[in-house]
Amino acid sequence: MGRAALSSHTCTIARAAALVGDEWTLMVLREMFLGTRRFDDFQRQTGMSSHLLSQRLKKLESAGIVQRRAYSQHPPRHEYRLTEVGRALWPVVISLKQWGDRWLGNGETPVALVHKGCGAVTEPGMTCPECGEPMDAHDSEARLSGGFSEERQRAGKQT
Amino acid sequence: MGRAALSSHTCTIARAAALVGDEWTLMVLREMFLGTRRFDDFQRQTGMSSHLLSQRLKKLESAGIVQRRAYSQHPPRHEYRLTEVGRALWPVVISLKQWGDRWLGNGETPVALVHKGCGAVTEPGMTCPECGEPMDAHDSEARLSGGFSEERQRAGKQT
Repeated sequence: MGRAALSSHTCTIARAAALVGDEWTLMVLREMFLGTRRFDDFQRQTGMSSHLLSQRLKKLESAGIVQRRAYSQHPPRHEYRLTEVGRALWPVVISLKQWGDRWLGNGETPVALVHKGCGAVTEPGMTCPECGEPMDAHDSEARLSGGFSEERQRAGKQT
Repeated sequence: MGRAALSSHTCTIARAAALVGDEWTLMVLREMFLGTRRFDDFQRQTGMSSHLLSQRLKKLESAGIVQRRAYSQHPPRHEYRLTEVGRALWPVVISLKQWGDRWLGNGETPVALVHKGCGAVTEPGMTCPECGEPMDAHDSEARLSGGFSEERQRAGKQT
């Protein structure tokens, strides 16, 4: 079963994972959130081959996550920017960073986040907007839709 | 440049991406957060081949994200559970789910989240714990550590 299969799942995690769930795509997204715009800079900062990088940028562009814009006509040169869809991936990249800082780090945090709103160096966390309390795996319960639940029941009966 | 290279980066996003940044690992994590414990059930619910699944579970186990426990001696059978390190990946999976629901969905949300604390069906969001306000890419600024900043300057000078 390949990527095409995952991208057609009912589950939106499966579909999101099929699009951005690979380490090099995540590196490209990290760079974009750090302000990198140009092909050569992506390549220098990630160590990706030009083939690999160009493949990932094309995939992101066709998914509407990245927009390519010409910044020079002679010679023709492009830069790459996140669209609104792409910027909405910020919590994914930040959650991954925080997990890495906490569990894979060596004590030094390579990137600190400043909240422009209040000026504090901060570590954003998942909060329930209904009650304002922090939320994690322990105090969350998944409620499956009828369609997804039926899909899983059918899958569970396969032998 | 392969995975080994990314896993040795200063950047903790790179290291986290090298461990869990692949679509099938994310599928296994989704299943774990939905309560799946047994090899056959992972396989039925994800459609992964037994080789692929076993490879991903081994990687997760050796990274300390998943713990394998015997639940039967005759025949020998194991179940897989998230460790504390693994449960801490909840915000990554939830952020991916929310992005997928918002941008790749067809209107129906396959999994709704209930906050046990307040009982509400909710969509947890990233919040600054210093001021309590929601945070996104627009109001966040990255401040690089000295070490990471130097590493990036060196990389930027490569030709």
